[in-house]
Amino acid sequence: MSDPAAPRPIRLGLLGCGTVGAALVQLVQAQADDIAARTGVALEVAGIAVRDTSRDRGIDVLPGVVTNDVEAVVDGADVVVELMGGVEPAGTLIRRALAQGTPVVTANKALLAEHGAELFELADANGVDLLFEAAVGGGIPIVRPMRESLLGEPVHRVLGIVNGTTNYILTRMAEAGASYVDALAEAQVLGYAEADPTADVEGYDAGAKIAILAAIAFGARVTSADVHHEGISALTAEDMAYAEATGRVIKLVAVAERADAGLALRVHPVLLPGTHPLAAVRESFNAVFVEGAAVGELMFYGRGAGGNPTASAVLGDVIDAALNALRGTHASMGTFTPVPITPIDDLECAFYITLEVVDRPGVLAAVAGAFGARNVSIASMNQDGARDDARIAFVTHVAREADIRATLADLHELDAVRHVGSVIRLLGDEDPS
Amino acid sequence: MSDPAAPRPIRLGLLGCGTVGAALVQLVQAQADDIAARTGVALEVAGIAVRDTSRDRGIDVLPGVVTNDVEAVVDGADVVVELMGGVEPAGTLIRRALAQGTPVVTANKALLAEHGAELFELADANGVDLLFEAAVGGGIPIVRPMRESLLGEPVHRVLGIVNGTTNYILTRMAEAGASYVDALAEAQVLGYAEADPTADVEGYDAGAKIAILAAIAFGARVTSADVHHEGISALTAEDMAYAEATGRVIKLVAVAERADAGLALRVHPVLLPGTHPLAAVRESFNAVFVEGAAVGELMFYGRGAGGNPTASAVLGDVIDAALNALRGTHASMGTFTPVPITPIDDLECAFYITLEVVDRPGVLAAVAGAFGARNVSIASMNQDGARDDARIAFVTHVAREADIRATLADLHELDAVRHVGSVIRLLGDEDPS
Repeated sequence: MSDPAAPRPIRLGLLGCGTVGAALVQLVQAQADDIAARTGVALEVAGIAVRDTSRDRGIDVLPGVVTNDVEAVVDGADVVVELMGGVEPAGTLIRRALAQGTPVVTANKALLAEHGAELFELADANGVDLLFEAAVGGGIPIVRPMRESLLGEPVHRVLGIVNGTTNYILTRMAEAGASYVDALAEAQVLGYAEADPTADVEGYDAGAKIAILAAIAFGARVTSADVHHEGISALTAEDMAYAEATGRVIKLVAVAERADAGLALRVHPVLLPGTHPLAAVRESFNAVFVEGAAVGELMFYGRGAGGNPTASAVLGDVIDAALNALRGTHASMGTFTPVPITPIDDLECAFYITLEVVDRPGVLAAVAGAFGARNVSIASMNQDGARDDARIAFVTHVAREADIRATLADLHELDAVRHVGSVIRLLGDEDPS
Repeated sequence: MSDPAAPRPIRLGLLGCGTVGAALVQLVQAQADDIAARTGVALEVAGIAVRDTSRDRGIDVLPGVVTNDVEAVVDGADVVVELMGGVEPAGTLIRRALAQGTPVVTANKALLAEHGAELFELADANGVDLLFEAAVGGGIPIVRPMRESLLGEPVHRVLGIVNGTTNYILTRMAEAGASYVDALAEAQVLGYAEADPTADVEGYDAGAKIAILAAIAFGARVTSADVHHEGISALTAEDMAYAEATGRVIKLVAVAERADAGLALRVHPVLLPGTHPLAAVRESFNAVFVEGAAVGELMFYGRGAGGNPTASAVLGDVIDAALNALRGTHASMGTFTPVPITPIDDLECAFYITLEVVDRPGVLAAVAGAFGARNVSIASMNQDGARDDARIAFVTHVAREADIRATLADLHELDAVRHVGSVIRLLGDEDPS
């Protein structure tokens, strides 16, 4: 229980002060009295390390607080808040703080997806917190519930829409009939997508986030390199029309699931049933859907990016780290065990596949034969014919990835197949009738 | 950091062993090794207090563990798990445990909605945990994120679908065209509704839950008695048809929001826009939607009831309480301040109102005049006429509740009005064009 008469000062040292940092400073200042009244902790922005001290960030702090001496900020803080991003020098500075027994709050997904287990163990060894709610899902409380509330839950699978850029693009393609290129351009104008959108649209950003979620959901020692990636840049208006006609929605989903003796980790577009809770996640919102043996289905939804939502998540961690520091305790990170990664070839699901073929007798038999020869069973087929060419959309029953890959290679070899178009997975457990 | 070689035993004492208790015992036994490996805590079911020790609960425990000596179970536990429900004797037993310095995990919404602030302060005064994730939203992690992640967030409003029985009934009415009576009967057959469904369908259960959420979201000292209740039993097929025709969904929503200088707390049906994330919450699922100044919109979704989901939430709390007990710490409950409750009459929103009127010249003018005389502005009107009678559905612009109430009283007095039918609110900030 706090003593509101005597709040205990906690000096925050910020490393980096871009959009999130400036939002955090403003939020801390606006909420400081309320936080002190409810917790007894008086937060104070004591140091802000930036590269260019002359830039106006629209924040109002005491003279000398903004500096380019990063070590001085680390060494003078009761809680270090790392908002620089990138693997270095952030990693070195976080290790310096932890080694000194100073708790760290970070939003750095790239660093944690590469070096998370090592840093978590360093924090535990030094008896301090390393908290990272904002590293996945922006403002959504997902890391803490996963680490704490679900620690005893037998989690089977985690499905995340964890990249707002691609979800915005897919929403515009589905709802406004925009092409991929136009929707991307619109996202760039709105500031949702960067000039080079590769990290978002090819699934690398989502891959880093699902590696972090998998580590905490399964206590597994995994990194981004364990994640299979496919992006959204090849999706077409025809794919969107097929999804709508069959009551489905196409989303870029990051998946971590128990498979055989190991874990399967991947990011790719999925044709979700329209009644799935993730199907209702629109525009730049994020959501993480968790399936557990006891708890059943859970979903956590909110703003996955942006200065204020991310600062909100950082602030929750800052208060927790401050309270723990005053009590002389810390949240245990638990143990991280190496697990085998199940190769994508060994996974199974149903597929939607489009082909452009020459429209002449015998073609359909040849194509169907290619599927059959690899033990891939066809659930449905639709053909749009015109003049010489035809476009055929197949949906398979649940099949092994390796067999689908072999089928696609065989189809490429057929003279009658001009082009293999889209290859999109259905949700793992859906076998179309 | 845990030492997996030497897990520390924690004795659990269960008070009550119905559906949730039996599911918890099975979950603890199934997960004990994994929990010990990840946390160093070896959970052990040491005592189970029940009224009838001869009943078979389908659980496998050591002889002597099941007893009807409730005090002995409390006194012999490292963590007490209260699953009896009801205000007494649960309250007395929880106070006994807390006074002895033993942490308590409870799923008891009735007790916390009445005596939460007192019990939280007792826990803090004794330096022990009183955790209650399962008291609201069953298996959904909502209490912990609200108490911890959002402690620094300026929360404006919390909207909850926190009663699975009524959400199931409303889903069946909306999707299968069932009447209220038939949907209720179906819910009773499936075990979702009790023989006397009053607590669910009139909003009392949801009211207790929103009182608890309001306490933790706003640090406010509130109880169930502060919540205004309206239920779903008067909703009709015509209301559902209106909702569908206008792209809306009717949900029973529990609301806690800052209003003027105080808090407004209420449970009533709401006509939600179809794109609102709560509109996609179907069947017996629950969800809590949070609006904060910094974080924006958040939603937490999952199973609001049932043995396994509720046991999952209890287990998360049990592990947390056990870890804290071993570290000699506890989660601070924070402070709970009395706040003025804003009377429902002072709130404002748009309303959907149906009237049965005599179909003769001048009636519409008289009815419209009744709205105008109370400063209630009409946004739209639809009339279905047949023979002597007509049914008119009005949607108002945003109006004060007191003015709507006065309008309804005036309408009752008009000779031409045979019956005032449904009165359903739109979501607070929606002003229909």
